[in-house]
Amino acid sequence: MNQPHCPLCHTDSGDVLWRDAFCRVVLADEPDYPGFLRVILNAHVKEMSDLPPADRMALMQVVWAAEAALVEVMQPDKINLASLGNVVPHLHWHVIPRFADDPHFPNPVWGARLRDQPHAAPPHLDAQLTATLTRRLAPAPETESR
Amino acid sequence: MNQPHCPLCHTDSGDVLWRDAFCRVVLADEPDYPGFLRVILNAHVKEMSDLPPADRMALMQVVWAAEAALVEVMQPDKINLASLGNVVPHLHWHVIPRFADDPHFPNPVWGARLRDQPHAAPPHLDAQLTATLTRRLAPAPETESR
Repeated sequence: MNQPHCPLCHTDSGDVLWRDAFCRVVLADEPDYPGFLRVILNAHVKEMSDLPPADRMALMQVVWAAEAALVEVMQPDKINLASLGNVVPHLHWHVIPRFADDPHFPNPVWGARLRDQPHAAPPHLDAQLTATLTRRLAPAPETESR
Repeated sequence: MNQPHCPLCHTDSGDVLWRDAFCRVVLADEPDYPGFLRVILNAHVKEMSDLPPADRMALMQVVWAAEAALVEVMQPDKINLASLGNVVPHLHWHVIPRFADDPHFPNPVWGARLRDQPHAAPPHLDAQLTATLTRRLAPAPETESR
């Protein structure tokens, strides 16, 4: 299944904040964007339409949790979501907190740079995001029976 | 509900290929990218996390149909999906067919331009996409009973 030259098959590609057997959420190494998360499918699959419908939805549930964690912890002005994969065709979602004073706003982070400094990050950002993701992605408790 | 200055509240913002009461799929006016689709929520909502879970999934079903229609009709080298909304904070998904010889590949379409000409589009592209979307988004037939 793993592809010999795919970095997402062979490295975590970021600090892992949450993971299960299906996917992982990593804090990207993007100094301009504290809190930039990536949701990376563990298996090497190219397109969302290559996944069975239930797996698409399972991956998006983690994307929504990543978005909700960023909103809760950082209160960004906007969330940007993207699945591109032109360079590394292994499914991964960019979940990016955007602020009016960040380096590219309102441009996409891949567009023209307008400012020098990143938006200031809150303290203990990785620990806060880990705790929030873990809570939001905890399995629902079983319905009480008798 | 409509916002007075939001273009997505007041115009279709593209040639409508498919629509229902919840959202629409438009062919964007992007000469560099024939087949560039946008899936636009009809209501003015800012973030996916502002939608109830069932509505998030309903919107993504249309995004997946748009992706699948592009794969079927254009056989792109990659699909790019993005929900940004920094300029127009009204939920819309970019669904972009990417080709190795397109103007920005492998960069995002918002990144550095590398070539002059768009990838050649197949004939009757809008009619082909409309037919494919309409088929893929048709309500499932009711299960036969008696």
